[in-house]
Amino acid sequence: MNQGKVYLVGAGPGDPNLLTVEAFNLLKTADVVFHDDLVSPEVLAIIPAHVYVENVGKRCGDSKITQQQIHSLLINAVREGWTVVRLKSGDPLVFSRAGEELEALRSAGVEYAIVPGITAAVGAAARAGVSLTDRRFASRLIFLSNHQCAGKARFQGRDTLADATLVIYMPGSDYDDIAANLCADGLTPETPCLLISHATRPQHQVHLTTLADLPNAPRYSAPVLLLVGAVAAAYNEHRTRPPEFAISSSLSVFELAADRYGES
Amino acid sequence: MNQGKVYLVGAGPGDPNLLTVEAFNLLKTADVVFHDDLVSPEVLAIIPAHVYVENVGKRCGDSKITQQQIHSLLINAVREGWTVVRLKSGDPLVFSRAGEELEALRSAGVEYAIVPGITAAVGAAARAGVSLTDRRFASRLIFLSNHQCAGKARFQGRDTLADATLVIYMPGSDYDDIAANLCADGLTPETPCLLISHATRPQHQVHLTTLADLPNAPRYSAPVLLLVGAVAAAYNEHRTRPPEFAISSSLSVFELAADRYGES
Repeated sequence: MNQGKVYLVGAGPGDPNLLTVEAFNLLKTADVVFHDDLVSPEVLAIIPAHVYVENVGKRCGDSKITQQQIHSLLINAVREGWTVVRLKSGDPLVFSRAGEELEALRSAGVEYAIVPGITAAVGAAARAGVSLTDRRFASRLIFLSNHQCAGKARFQGRDTLADATLVIYMPGSDYDDIAANLCADGLTPETPCLLISHATRPQHQVHLTTLADLPNAPRYSAPVLLLVGAVAAAYNEHRTRPPEFAISSSLSVFELAADRYGES
Repeated sequence: MNQGKVYLVGAGPGDPNLLTVEAFNLLKTADVVFHDDLVSPEVLAIIPAHVYVENVGKRCGDSKITQQQIHSLLINAVREGWTVVRLKSGDPLVFSRAGEELEALRSAGVEYAIVPGITAAVGAAARAGVSLTDRRFASRLIFLSNHQCAGKARFQGRDTLADATLVIYMPGSDYDDIAANLCADGLTPETPCLLISHATRPQHQVHLTTLADLPNAPRYSAPVLLLVGAVAAAYNEHRTRPPEFAISSSLSVFELAADRYGES
């Protein structure tokens, strides 16, 4: 029997053109794909029809499936000799449950590899035209999660945030609380903020505001990212443009590429 | 005359299979590529031979070219009607001079777009098998640069670093200083550290140590990344494996893909 393998793969922020070449190739050759809720339909559309695809996504307070059940699915599938893709939105090692899944795979003695992806922060920044570590405004870049399930992550000390760019993944909807906490941690109410929803996808939305006005900002549907810091103000000057290699969801990236460059 | 356009493109950590599909397509169709020093030879090898390629890299204290001259090169090239790729290792918006280049392009009224890339931290973590935000050990992820040219970036307050994963880009070679500073900022000498050189490339090297022993760690050649925090200990359990879609530097990714999947 063939030895199967699990690939923990980053799906990137949503635009299939932002898959890595390796992720693209794996999605085209996998036997099984288990994916999270936030993986975009545009990315799922490139998976060939014969591949078994299952959404094992869990949302806060609405678990369809336990973490333990996901481990069993992965391990059983690989023991069938299959090439298994565990597809996570963004990068698999940033704010996902990769640590626990990797441990389960190691304990089971299963072959695995990790394929990184474009994490939401850099995808969103690219479309917003914002340099995350512009050396005139920021010397560090901090990613944190405000997900209600994930517990609290707070900063202490005025000096920590003053020259940082903060990216809050899954900011939820309690913007009053976020703004109050960040101001309590030393940021001024005038600090610029960008709310970015569905970055790199057709329904992309961006709202530029300040910490003071954040409570009045629109509540976009997930996936949403909140970018806080002086660099966010650069968004003012930028017109976002459609990606050059936009594709329809029914056409595979690979076919598009072959077609564009006459290498078929 | 055709209207040219500048693409600010992330080259990722080095393995050309970790280019995005969009970056790959742009490198195959550009008229001109201006790249940084740290872009890997493996990535440069996929650029067709007829494309004009220039290294505009600047190393600390050894400037071949000024930032102003880079702006002029980009603007002059786009005014020739060319498709210009400005290729930066990793992601173009994380620890590069993208902010200044974007401003120059905006001032000149030049068309541009940004194509994100796999930033070094997630590329290195994928190969080391380390979940950067494993929720049992870390609630935030902090990227900072210790480059000698870039000034000092220090943390204050014991609580800030205790539950964070730190990734230090361009850590230089003064590991005594880095370890002393991080311990002064509240981390214990037992905190695990990973030094990762040439992540995702054939000459990939990893050294697991602690803050206490960091001064005795090997000085690998650039690009190097220093990962500090409890999550780094997971490296112990992991055997790194060669990437599944390894390619020789003389073969283009695209040709490989066409060959592998019979879609030619």
